[in-house]
Amino acid sequence: MTDRVTVALDANGADLGPGEVARGAALAAERGVDVLLFGPAARLGDPAPGVEIVDAPVSIAKAADPARAVRATPESSIVQAVRAVASGRADALVSGGSTGAVLAAGLFEIRRARGVHRPALAIVVPAPEAPFLLLDVGANVEVRPEHLIQFAHMGAAFMEAVHGFERPRVALLSNGEEPTRGPSDVVAAHAQLATAGNLNFIGNVEGFAFGTGAADVIVCDGFAGNVALKSMEGTMNALLRAIRAAAESGPRAIVGGTLLRPALQTLRDQLDPQEQGGAVLLGLRKLCVVPHGSFEARGFARAVEVAARGVREDVVGRSHARLAAADVLRRAPLSEDASAVAASVTERS
Amino acid sequence: MTDRVTVALDANGADLGPGEVARGAALAAERGVDVLLFGPAARLGDPAPGVEIVDAPVSIAKAADPARAVRATPESSIVQAVRAVASGRADALVSGGSTGAVLAAGLFEIRRARGVHRPALAIVVPAPEAPFLLLDVGANVEVRPEHLIQFAHMGAAFMEAVHGFERPRVALLSNGEEPTRGPSDVVAAHAQLATAGNLNFIGNVEGFAFGTGAADVIVCDGFAGNVALKSMEGTMNALLRAIRAAAESGPRAIVGGTLLRPALQTLRDQLDPQEQGGAVLLGLRKLCVVPHGSFEARGFARAVEVAARGVREDVVGRSHARLAAADVLRRAPLSEDASAVAASVTERS
Repeated sequence: MTDRVTVALDANGADLGPGEVARGAALAAERGVDVLLFGPAARLGDPAPGVEIVDAPVSIAKAADPARAVRATPESSIVQAVRAVASGRADALVSGGSTGAVLAAGLFEIRRARGVHRPALAIVVPAPEAPFLLLDVGANVEVRPEHLIQFAHMGAAFMEAVHGFERPRVALLSNGEEPTRGPSDVVAAHAQLATAGNLNFIGNVEGFAFGTGAADVIVCDGFAGNVALKSMEGTMNALLRAIRAAAESGPRAIVGGTLLRPALQTLRDQLDPQEQGGAVLLGLRKLCVVPHGSFEARGFARAVEVAARGVREDVVGRSHARLAAADVLRRAPLSEDASAVAASVTERS
Repeated sequence: MTDRVTVALDANGADLGPGEVARGAALAAERGVDVLLFGPAARLGDPAPGVEIVDAPVSIAKAADPARAVRATPESSIVQAVRAVASGRADALVSGGSTGAVLAAGLFEIRRARGVHRPALAIVVPAPEAPFLLLDVGANVEVRPEHLIQFAHMGAAFMEAVHGFERPRVALLSNGEEPTRGPSDVVAAHAQLATAGNLNFIGNVEGFAFGTGAADVIVCDGFAGNVALKSMEGTMNALLRAIRAAAESGPRAIVGGTLLRPALQTLRDQLDPQEQGGAVLLGLRKLCVVPHGSFEARGFARAVEVAARGVREDVVGRSHARLAAADVLRRAPLSEDASAVAASVTERS
């Protein structure tokens, strides 16, 4: 058995251009991951050792209707990258910029894992003291209790496999800690999760839990998760902006700010979303990682590393094993067409 | 016509005790508001000028089932205060600590304003650059489009009446700016609000809008609103804690933090929730203000002032006029029992 993992990396969709993604590929390859890089060869430079370039200049990263664009544009870099994963030529996918395109292409080509109702978009939130996994953050704006229950198990499997947690503490996001709090679907999911023997379910947490370290995995529908994630980001940005303005508001404050800056560097590093490699799409037959379009080379390299670690630690197999052990695999045939699911995705920016 | 306004103030429910609330009453009376103070007379001291004390020692602020406690405890300070408002002896209510008890007592005694489906809990979020009204933050975990539409008009009326906005910009909270984004109820509400001639509706905003000044009123269901509000609070607290720790991490940082502190005082003042007086319950026949249980005398005084301003500027009448002009008043008799509505409320802490 070999430890070599090949990640298919889509070079389109990055704000800084395909060349930046290629530099990320080179960094990841240096750290031992083989990369199959799909993008405009003319803009990718010479391939670094461990990187193989597949010329795929067409980008659908900015398409208004990602599901339609995926169907209509098989020559696009993302569809080619996804097909490389579906065929087994690569083991996992990384594609930045368009969550909708990744979800659509993933659903159509890689397909849902056996027994999974809906894939979920999950993100490790870089809270100052205690990072945690939040899911769903936008793949499904409306969910049923059985979806939330699967998200809980898939999130736990990811934190075990990729972040090395032994018994990740899983919570439901609600508007109060009591089991009866929240919309009826959350209450129903709570009742079922409370009896799941193979899950370290700690009950409901409130929005305050963001940053307290109260849970390692926080589960919610994609609407609440998207609102929560963005309100955290908005709050953090507004607060940091206000503090920066205060630190420039006079000579005394400027000196203070300058003296304080080195001590704040650790915090800045902790809050840097690039360190986590972006969001992950859980519930497909292969792992997909979605770095944010604003990431630099190091962010794309981290995304490739997260994908490779997910493959080595078998996040897909562990998810299935968890869902099977909890007896929450879908039994009926898929009632929803992949296009309908793909259409509901939320972009992160 | 006289400008005198009487506010019924419940002295129970404050973490710092009834005496602290009595000091708040004195502060508000100094600023020209008559206060009818309900609480344990033995712990309220001598009444300040402009404050009349009604001995009502029984508190239900910590009751597990507020609706039941309100029904069963007519002698409690909150029920007496609410009845004073219902009978016209006072013009508005202020009661801290238990949102559930205020909602239940308000629904039973003051009752919903004519044509209003559901009262909404609204809060002015003290964002660093641009405070805005967020509603609902927990009175209704599940809503229909007609509820969201009424919240939009009631929120606009409040910001006009109490905060002096001329044409408050009203937005729906969603997971994307496009009108088709969000759960089906949000999409339906968007379509109707877009055609409301008397509302300055600017469309959807995302969670990022918290702190950007993008909207003056942000409308959502009580679940998303509660999650958003608490995730903002959690994020702000975690970040400030981390910055404080950094500013104590070494001699250089300590000097820097000390020099920066005065410049940060303005920001601290802006973020202080006491300045806004707490949450307001909109949609009843009289205005109710709910200061947080942790508030000091000055926070309770601000709550009384907000209530008085709402009376002077006729927030209830303006709300009704807006709802009537938009033709969104409820026509059918109330389909929901007040107890059922009261049971759904979310505590804020």
